[in-house]
This record gives sequence, structure tokens and C-alpha cells, in this order.
Amino acid sequence: MVDLWLTETHKEAGLTVRVSGTVYSERSAFQQVDVVDTVPYGRMLLLDGRVMTTEQDEFVYHEMIVHVPMLSFAQPPTRVLVIGGGDGGTVREVLRYPSVEQVVLCEIDGLVIEACKAHLPDISVALREPLDPRLTVIVGDGIDYIERQHNAFDLIIIDSTDPMGPGEGLFTETFYRHVHRALTAHGMMTAQTESPVLDKTEFVNIYRNLLPVFSVVKPYVGSVPTYPSGMWSWAFCSKGETPLPKAPAQTIEAIAAHTRYYTPEVHTAAFALPGFVQALVAQAAQSSAQPVVLAAGGAN
Amino acid sequence: MVDLWLTETHKEAGLTVRVSGTVYSERSAFQQVDVVDTVPYGRMLLLDGRVMTTEQDEFVYHEMIVHVPMLSFAQPPTRVLVIGGGDGGTVREVLRYPSVEQVVLCEIDGLVIEACKAHLPDISVALREPLDPRLTVIVGDGIDYIERQHNAFDLIIIDSTDPMGPGEGLFTETFYRHVHRALTAHGMMTAQTESPVLDKTEFVNIYRNLLPVFSVVKPYVGSVPTYPSGMWSWAFCSKGETPLPKAPAQTIEAIAAHTRYYTPEVHTAAFALPGFVQALVAQAAQSSAQPVVLAAGGAN
Repeated sequence: MVDLWLTETHKEAGLTVRVSGTVYSERSAFQQVDVVDTVPYGRMLLLDGRVMTTEQDEFVYHEMIVHVPMLSFAQPPTRVLVIGGGDGGTVREVLRYPSVEQVVLCEIDGLVIEACKAHLPDISVALREPLDPRLTVIVGDGIDYIERQHNAFDLIIIDSTDPMGPGEGLFTETFYRHVHRALTAHGMMTAQTESPVLDKTEFVNIYRNLLPVFSVVKPYVGSVPTYPSGMWSWAFCSKGETPLPKAPAQTIEAIAAHTRYYTPEVHTAAFALPGFVQALVAQAAQSSAQPVVLAAGGAN
Repeated sequence: MVDLWLTETHKEAGLTVRVSGTVYSERSAFQQVDVVDTVPYGRMLLLDGRVMTTEQDEFVYHEMIVHVPMLSFAQPPTRVLVIGGGDGGTVREVLRYPSVEQVVLCEIDGLVIEACKAHLPDISVALREPLDPRLTVIVGDGIDYIERQHNAFDLIIIDSTDPMGPGEGLFTETFYRHVHRALTAHGMMTAQTESPVLDKTEFVNIYRNLLPVFSVVKPYVGSVPTYPSGMWSWAFCSKGETPLPKAPAQTIEAIAAHTRYYTPEVHTAAFALPGFVQALVAQAAQSSAQPVVLAAGGAN
């Protein structure tokens, strides 16, 4: 058999994996969508050649972007919005909580949803018909959608691609102000915030944009083997409420049988930032302390 | 200029980095020793084509293998043995502590020491003449050396390559029994224990070998971007003393100005194992609970 390897280079470094077959390859209005079978990480989704998720390590990213906010307040969120996340992994985790009453998934690219439904069944399980009656799937631009929402969600999850191409507008201060306005008074947001190792400039820019908008901005980290550098970060943001020091035990029961990365101890540990990551956050804080020209539609 | 990329494949996955030049390439009696200049991670040392350390991310590995044990007991270690670690990064970190009285570095391959002294000056700084009077460098086999030591060291650090080639004998139960005998009553060992993502079999084997030997065996994890999968693990082992829940504040002062990854919070967080890593440790514990044929020279 031919010896196939797929390499994703990100800046001056990359991941290479042995591939046993190609599964799907189409171009949407927004991006190139590919699914391949890899030997080390199982089936893999790529958008514009960048690794989005794999069967073998998707649980880290999806558990950390969902269970950290879901288990941060004594009162769990009931109305949840996911922007991006067309593979379905994030809504799959959100729907595990019986306390959740409404979930909206707003993904810009319908082809991503179709490709994942067809070829990544374990990740996209929540998108398969019949849908959970609590879930609404919208194929549309999250930037437009969020502008029309006021005081509507307890939790907004920004499950985006990198800050380039279709994902670019999901990292601006204006967008974050719209998210803030779309949240209830006790609402919170989590967002993926790139690699603090290989995306230092992007990381600092993201936190520079978040810090003027949310009263509480807490980065957290974890190991996602198929993402650049393997060290990944997310932001926990709220309008003032600080997360509990420890996840509440009674609500953990809803997910304990399913999680493979998240534990209550991992939850706490993820906020213990390595020294060099703290330094990047301090750099963002320093530059965001400069006078800022407020974008239209500022936080209410 | 020619577009050069170096790829290290480890099983079915790999790291690829842009290279701006090759610096050193020699074959020793034990292995192929290469030094190259990479764009994303600075200068890199490879042994038999496997990435050992780089200028840009070496601090994670060296800080975690040294400062976790150095700051685990109220009484800091005074006599320290490092097996492997020919690049010098581990002894550099150990020598930061004024409380350390004696350090022995036992590296099998003199060519590794020479290559690092010549080409990786920041990592090998402690190996440059004149040596710190507390440091003794031995070019020799750590397996032979440890057999002759009884009750001699407060801390033994196994800073080895992977469990194949020259490093293979540094992961056996017999070797760990010799380490145990070489430790003082309050002694401890740390060892690198591979990637729990890509080296699951090796990880389980290592812990299966450690668990019957040491009363306390606690794995801990961190992000080393240039190691396979980016998620790395180490073992903290002792004869019965459990590590402090928090690193003692007064001794942290010795290193606070130098560390870029380690913090007292990262120390605690590193022991919060993701669910799938806990499952691997449980698998090792189950198989090591089987009757074990004791090797000659068992623990005293």
C-alpha cells in the first residue's frame, strides 16, 4: 500500500500523521472541507487544510470548552448558544445536562455540518435526526446572529476556527461586546483562544480585545495533541461573577460517566497558568489599558 | 534559500519544523547526535533522529523534572544524582538551590555533553568550566553506577531518552529497585515517563514497573510542544513520604526569577491527571498487582 502522510504546517511548525485513506473532499462557499482517516488519531476533519478535530482527541477540546463553564456557577446555565462548532461535539456535551432547556447552534458553513453528519458520527451524534427538542440548528453567520440577541443566553460558546478566513470576525472587540449584550446578567462566555506557544501574537490580541469587555476574563489551558504545539487555551469570561473554586459535585454527576479528560481536579488545574502564559496575559492587559476607541454597539 | 524541514516521526505521528541550518552531526558509540537550527523552537538536539530538547521549550521539561521534587518536601534534598541529562539542563536547575551540597551527573554518552557544550550554551551552562564545585560529571553507564550506590542520594532524577536503545535499561523494575536502594530513607526519584497519548503501552509498562518498588508513585503531566503529542508525563516516587500539597514558599524564592513554566500553582495542577491518564495508571496498577518475580538486589 502507498505510504501516505498528511502534514499541517502552522507557521514554522507542523503536525504530520500517517493516513490510511481519504474520505471526503469538497469546497464550500467559505472553505475547503476534508475528512481523512489517520492511523494515530482516527478520522480527522480539516478546514482549509487545518486540523479541526479528530475522533481520538476531540474529547479534550469539547469537554474543556463546555464543562468548565457549565460547572463554574452554582446555578447551571439553562439557555446556551454555540457559535461555530459545526462538527457537533460542543452541543453533544452541552446536551448532557438535564438542566439545559435551550441550545442554539449557529454555524456559518452548512457543508461542515453535512460532512460531519456523514463521516464523523460519534462527534456529530447530536446533529442527527430526530434532534433533541431542546436544540435548534441555524446555518448562518454568528456575527449577524449575535447582533440581534439581547439578554438572551446564560452561556455563549465561541467554538471557532483560527482568527483568519471565516473565523476572523469572531475575535474582535466589537464581536465580544455583542456577545456581552447577548448574555443574561449572570451569563458567561467561553471561547477558544489559540496556542500560547505558536500563536503568541494572536493570543495577546484576543485577550487585549476581551479584557475591556468582560469584568472577569480567566484563561485556562489543556493538551490537545492535534492542535499546533499541543498546548491549547480557552477564555472563561463573565460580567462579574467569578467561577466557583471547585465544580459543584451534584452537577458533575450528569457527565461523570462520559468524560475522558475533564475531572473536577482538571477543571481547577486548567486555570493554573504556566509562567510564560501569565506573562502573555499581562502583556495583553498592559496594552488594553491604553485608551480604547469604543466600537459602535458597546456593552450595555 | 532552500526550504528545509525536519520531521521526527514517532509511531504514526510526527513533528515537522522549518530548519534554517544544520550545526552538528556525529555518530557516537551509542547513537547519532545532531544539532540543527529550527525557526519555531530555536536550536534543537536530536539523538537517533528523536527530538531531545530545544532552546525555546527546554524550560518546561527541565523545570518540571527538577522543581517538582525539589519543592515537594519541607526539607529540600542536599545530595542529588542525575542519570542521563547530558545536555545539562537538569543540573542547571538543580544547582539553583543553595541548599544542594552535591550533584552527580552520570551520562553514558560523552559526545552528547560535548555537542551541547559547543552548540547549546544556555542549556549546558552548568557543564562549562570552571564547574560549580558541588557538581561531578561522570561519563558512564547509569545502570552500572546506580548498582554501587546505597543510601547515597536524597533525590535521583532519571533524565533519559525513550525506552529503546541506550535508554531502555532505565525503565526496568530491576533498575528502579537499584534506584530505591540508592536513595536515603527520605529520598525521592523523578523520571520522565513518556507521552500518555502516543506511548500508552510504554506508559503502562513504566508504571507497572514502578508501582511494586516505591510506596508513593504519583504521575504528573505538562505541555512540552516538541515532544510526541505535546503532552508529557513524569513520575514522582518516594519510599513513603507524600509530597506537600503546596510547594514551600521560602524555597521557591531560589528559583522564582528563573522559571518560565513552573509556578507553585502549576506544581499542584500537574498532579491533576486527565481521566484517560488516570485510567492508564489504574491499568498499570491492576497488572502490577499480579504476583511479581523479584529481581536480584531488591529494595532494602
